[in-house]
Order: sequence, then C-alpha cells, then structure tokens
Amino acid sequence: MTSFASLSDLRDACRDLPAGDREAAEAVAAREATLTKPLQSLGRLEGLVEWLAYWQGNSPPTLDRIEMLVFAGNHGVTAQGVSAYPAEVTAQMVTNFANGRAAINQLARLTGANLRVLPLSLDTPTADFTTAPALPEDAFLEAVATGYDAVPADADLVVLGEMGIGNTTAAAALAAGLFGGGGERFAGRGTGIDDDGLARKCAVIDRALDTHADALSDPLLTAAALGGRELAAILGACLAARHARIPVLLDGFVCTAAAAPLYRLRADGLDHAQAGHLSAEAGHKTLLTELGMTPVLDLGMRLGEASGAAVALLVLRAGLACHSGMATFAEAQVSGRSS
Amino acid sequence: MTSFASLSDLRDACRDLPAGDREAAEAVAAREATLTKPLQSLGRLEGLVEWLAYWQGNSPPTLDRIEMLVFAGNHGVTAQGVSAYPAEVTAQMVTNFANGRAAINQLARLTGANLRVLPLSLDTPTADFTTAPALPEDAFLEAVATGYDAVPADADLVVLGEMGIGNTTAAAALAAGLFGGGGERFAGRGTGIDDDGLARKCAVIDRALDTHADALSDPLLTAAALGGRELAAILGACLAARHARIPVLLDGFVCTAAAAPLYRLRADGLDHAQAGHLSAEAGHKTLLTELGMTPVLDLGMRLGEASGAAVALLVLRAGLACHSGMATFAEAQVSGRSS
Repeated sequence: MTSFASLSDLRDACRDLPAGDREAAEAVAAREATLTKPLQSLGRLEGLVEWLAYWQGNSPPTLDRIEMLVFAGNHGVTAQGVSAYPAEVTAQMVTNFANGRAAINQLARLTGANLRVLPLSLDTPTADFTTAPALPEDAFLEAVATGYDAVPADADLVVLGEMGIGNTTAAAALAAGLFGGGGERFAGRGTGIDDDGLARKCAVIDRALDTHADALSDPLLTAAALGGRELAAILGACLAARHARIPVLLDGFVCTAAAAPLYRLRADGLDHAQAGHLSAEAGHKTLLTELGMTPVLDLGMRLGEASGAAVALLVLRAGLACHSGMATFAEAQVSGRSS
Repeated sequence: MTSFASLSDLRDACRDLPAGDREAAEAVAAREATLTKPLQSLGRLEGLVEWLAYWQGNSPPTLDRIEMLVFAGNHGVTAQGVSAYPAEVTAQMVTNFANGRAAINQLARLTGANLRVLPLSLDTPTADFTTAPALPEDAFLEAVATGYDAVPADADLVVLGEMGIGNTTAAAALAAGLFGGGGERFAGRGTGIDDDGLARKCAVIDRALDTHADALSDPLLTAAALGGRELAAILGACLAARHARIPVLLDGFVCTAAAAPLYRLRADGLDHAQAGHLSAEAGHKTLLTELGMTPVLDLGMRLGEASGAAVALLVLRAGLACHSGMATFAEAQVSGRSS
C-alpha cells in the first residue's frame, strides 16, 4: 500500500518523474514512414501510436491490458444547490455500474477494457468548501494513495473517469484555483442546471476561491481545499501511471481538472496523458488550452464516467491496428513517390 | 443487374427518393431520455443512433451487417503531373487490399465490417478531362450501375471509400463544377504534392472547368465530365443505399465529392449519409459546408480507402452499445432530476 506521509512527500513524488523512451518512439515513426500510405496520411492516429510507444517503451506498443478506473465521491457543496440531481445519485450510479448497466459498462465491453469502479467514502461527503477545505490533509492524501494503488504495474494504458454529483463545481473551483479567473471562467451546466443554478454555481465558486485564497499558491493544497476524493484519486492514479511509464487517457472536464495539479507542479507532468475528448462542459476548452492539450475527439459528450476517453480508446485501437498490420511499400511492392 | 438507360433515367432515380421512418427515430429519442445519464450527455452519439434508426426503420437500430465498399479507378489527368505517386500505384494498392495489408484491411477487421474492393477497369483510365469528358455517358452509367449493384439489400450500414491516383484532382474539379469557384477553392495536396504541383493542379482544374462549361448546369453531366469511375460507383452505391433505406458513412474529400451530385439534384438527397470525418485534404471543409454536413471526426486523416469512415463506424458502435445496453432510471432505481 502506498502512503504519502505529508503534502511535501506527495509534492516530491509529483516532481520526481521519469521521461519516456525516445528510441521506441523513433522506431514507430521510422516504421510509419515505410507503410503503404502517403506520409502522415493517418493524421492524429500516427502521433498517438508514437506517444504510446514513447511511454510504454515498446515498438510496436501494445493495447492488451487496458485498465479503466472510475472513481466516485460525494461533495458537501451540493448543499448549495449547484447540481440538477440529488447527491444520492452518486451511490445509485455506483450500483448501476456494479450491475453493468451504465454507459461506461457498455463502452468498456466494446473497447475491451477492464473496468473497475472505486467508490470513495460515499457516506462521508467532503466538507462544503465555501466555508472549509473540502478535505483535510490526511483524507486528501489517503484518496490520492487509493488512486495510486489502483494502477496495475503491467497495464498498457490507464483510462480515467469519475462519478460524483456536484463534482463539476469542485472541478471548476479547482481549475480556477490553479489557473486564475473566477467561477465564470470554468463553471458550466454540469448534469443540466438552469440559468439560476449556473449563477449560483459561479457565486459558490467565487466564495470558495475567497475562502481558500491562502491555499492557491500551492497546487496540492488547492486540490485538497477545492477538489474531492474522486479528484484526488485521479491525481494519484495519473501519478502512479507516470511512475510506471504507463500512458493515460483522461476523460472530460472533471478528470482533466483533477490531473491538472501535476502540470502545475511540473510543466511536463502530464506528457504521459492525452485528453480523450473535448467535453461539452463549458470550462473544458479553457482548461485544455491552459494545459496545452489537444483533445482526440470532439463529440459534444458531457457524461463523465470515462465515457469520452473510452471512445478515444477506439481511435488508439484503430491507429495501432494500422501500424501493426499494414505492409511496407517494399513488402507490398508498391511504387514510391514519383519525385 | 441494374442498368440506367440514359442520364435522364438516372436523374429520375436520383429524384425519386424515399424518406426514413420517423416513428423509429422517435422511439430511439424517447428511450434515450429514460436512460441513466443526463439528457443529451452522450452528445453526437445520441443523434447518430437516432439517424441510424430513422433510415433503417428499426428501434433500436442494428449494426450487424456492415458493408464496406472501396472502389478503385484510374485517371487520365495524371498525365498532367497532378499526383505525387505514379498511376500504377492504384493497381498495386488493389493487390495490397487483396492481400489484407492496407490500412483499410486492418480497420475493417477492427470494426467488424465486410470489406469489398471493386477495381473498375484499371487498365482503361478515364480521358484527360482537360480536353475531353473523363467518361462518355455509357461508361459513366455503367460505373454508376456497378456501384448501385454492390450494395446488398440487407446491409445495416454502407461505408464508402475509394482508391485512385489522381482522384483528388477529379474530386476538386467535380466539387468546383457543382458548387462554383475555381481550382483554388477545392484543390489540396492529395497524396503529397509540393507547391509547384499544387499550382499545376489548380491550373488543370481551371482548364477542365473551362472545357466543360456547358456541362456544369447538369450535376450528372458534370460528374461524367470531371469525375471518374470510382466516383461514379460511389454515387451509384449511395443512391442504391437510399432506395433501400440503408444509412451511409462517407469517407473523405473524394467520397464526398462523388456523392455530392445527389445533393445537387435534391436538397435532401444525402440525408441518409453522414460525413465520417473531416479530411485534412484542403477542399473538404468547404465542400462539407456547401452540403451542410458536420463530420463525425476530425483526426487530420487524408488517406482515403474509407479509413476515416471506418474510424467513425467505431463511434456509431459506441453510441449503439450505450443505447441498447444501458438501464433506464426506473430499471436502475436511480433518482431523477431534483427540480
């Protein structure tokens, strides 16, 4: 069991990161150039295969063992009326996951991923962060460690997602805390609040940013004060994947915000992660721009549960299938360029 | 065997089109609203499933039999130096398809589609359309009929693609002929020509538009004059699918241009088709805007062979898996919205 003794201990772990394997990436790029297609004509698919190889240290990379981790948590800030659904839905959806009947169950089956859902102390919501830190340091570190330990060392890819009524409010507050701007810059309609609800959500976030102004110079303190257990676990899982050199697909807005402290602590801290998709949740585009990430897909999805990342996994599978199965110009005796 | 006796016969067939099944689409939409997710939170996936249902007349729709048709043709205009690869590559790539080693073979396997490659008189390229119609009327109608007959009546979905050295020049000329503007509006780098090649390609298209100015008031005459056999076959396949109420995924620029005469003959003539992706080929965005189509994916691909449409098929599969497998709020005993 991993345990981080203090925020400072975790901060060190976030700063001590390995790079990938340049040789494996170069071997993929070299093979791509020989395959029976015009140079770079598979576009993003080629770069994604190279990225997989770089982090796995394998050429060709493999996508045999995909670990899909969905963390669930509850949020005290729901008392402020920031969500269209009642807080009990988090636990009900965890049951729905267990029964195999949520969207992500169907997508995990379709994509050949091993789905695990980890509910985190659902009976003990975080504190309402307008008045106190969402999580005290020990609870924050425990959630990070839970996420860290959920990553199997032999995974080829980790796909991260979340479920938690109220967590787009936490994610927007965290994103604003890390990158500046108020609630308006990052708040969206979440599961579907109306205009009044959105105004309330922005005000709640602004109050929280005021309350925790002293924490905002420290990305991890910010994550403890404004995030939540499932966000902390995503941070931990993303960190564990980096230490094990496993590439990561992030889902939407909440998932990206949860991982963002890694970027804040080290500019290359999320180089092993791709944004699976651009969520329709309003703040995601701004957040991805801050992180310098280009999402694989843009399908107007905003469900969470890792659903957007799961669809992006299909794009990775397509890229890898082409890379691994195609003939070279020489093998196929196809003529090269005229000039 | 289908045969169109004349352009006028084909024109009638292009104008006599069935609509889809509104009840099936409404049944899908009604079910979507009961599934355990916020309303519309699967974004484009939901609309695509509804579109499948509308054309199949099934709720839920099925994706059991996917027919993926790749038509190949050769182009006399290659004599003008408009391509980065020599014309013999078309036949060599058909062999590569037959050996299962091209990109589309890998993608057909991954997506569970039945791939058929249909080479069309590769030893008899079309005429150089700067001086004569690419195809005389009878050869054009024959290619359309070949495409028409390639569509099995029991397919759940038809995925269309092409291979043909020189055919981005034909597609750009056809698009310009149908929608106005010169070569510059629609010409791109195809398989990878340099700046000189691109200038030459634009000039070739402008000359062709001059040569066939009299044909441009008639979309089918335009297709015969500026297209090619594989483009004509795509038109025929797309028409057959509509008559059989089978939804269609179009690939990139060439495929879209090939189907565009159906839109020109009837504004709803391509309602049964989706643009699988936005190609990196320069003219595709403009063409899709003319057609009012929003591509499913934007991955910077520009290979052809139906490769972009194949990746889009994975998105359809994801949408259908969610639609068919998810629990309703009632089944899962998940609470509805608070307000």
